[in-house]
Amino acid sequence: MTKESEKYFEIAIEEAKNGIDSDEGGPFGAVIVKDGEVIASAHNEVIKTNDPTAHAEILAIRRASEKLSRFDLSDCTIYSTCEPCPMCFSAIHWAKIKNLHYGCDNRDASEIGFDDKFIYDVIRGVSDDIKLSSVQEHREECLPLFKLWEGKQDKVRY
Amino acid sequence: MTKESEKYFEIAIEEAKNGIDSDEGGPFGAVIVKDGEVIASAHNEVIKTNDPTAHAEILAIRRASEKLSRFDLSDCTIYSTCEPCPMCFSAIHWAKIKNLHYGCDNRDASEIGFDDKFIYDVIRGVSDDIKLSSVQEHREECLPLFKLWEGKQDKVRY
Repeated sequence: MTKESEKYFEIAIEEAKNGIDSDEGGPFGAVIVKDGEVIASAHNEVIKTNDPTAHAEILAIRRASEKLSRFDLSDCTIYSTCEPCPMCFSAIHWAKIKNLHYGCDNRDASEIGFDDKFIYDVIRGVSDDIKLSSVQEHREECLPLFKLWEGKQDKVRY
Repeated sequence: MTKESEKYFEIAIEEAKNGIDSDEGGPFGAVIVKDGEVIASAHNEVIKTNDPTAHAEILAIRRASEKLSRFDLSDCTIYSTCEPCPMCFSAIHWAKIKNLHYGCDNRDASEIGFDDKFIYDVIRGVSDDIKLSSVQEHREECLPLFKLWEGKQDKVRY
């Protein structure tokens, strides 16, 4: 535990507090830091925006990438008041962030009604409570899109 | 394969094509339908927005929840040109969507340079290439947030 991370956790905690006090979301805050500078901070805004993807980490990544004008945040570190759900955990990977510091863990979250274990269990193939029915169809009609992309000369890889 | 789903796939494919043609993102489109009505459609906008979370399914969920003014999309079905990555797969669960139809699969995506298998492998605990270092710290400082939420009388559960 470093003095430096303490500073960023304080900001993440303050964010989360503001989110609770303003009825915008649950007790989740996140901060993205680059070279010791806070690039973005956010709290959960699911209630405020009605957007089920508006988790603190997702919003912080969106804001940081907007501020830096790039989708590659590999030189950034993310601090979160809670262990990320699988959506946010994956988003952190897409953003190429290499360091994550989190406060409470999934069990703490589960105890206050935020349970992401069922999604982790589905992905891990150990769930006995599948809530989503998935069907693959029309692959033949979708494949040409992939060929179109593959053949595009000036495409930006991301 | 139904005539109905064909109609929605056509829209998702058209979305994806527009995204490629306008250099906004990869070959991914998604459509959200409720009672036979298209509520939202989107294509990948990672390149356009520099937002690494701007996948087609995430954007479609955001737009649908905005349009319906609610974070619970359990009466909606999502159609996607590709099997969702773990971020989008989890977002679909948070939105409580119960039915997913997808065209191409993860292997098709991998063949054109979009590989989400490494994230699935990390979550499944079978990865030998961990790209993210995760540290838990400051749990004691974050826990009071959870207690604050738990004690909040007028909280909206989501």
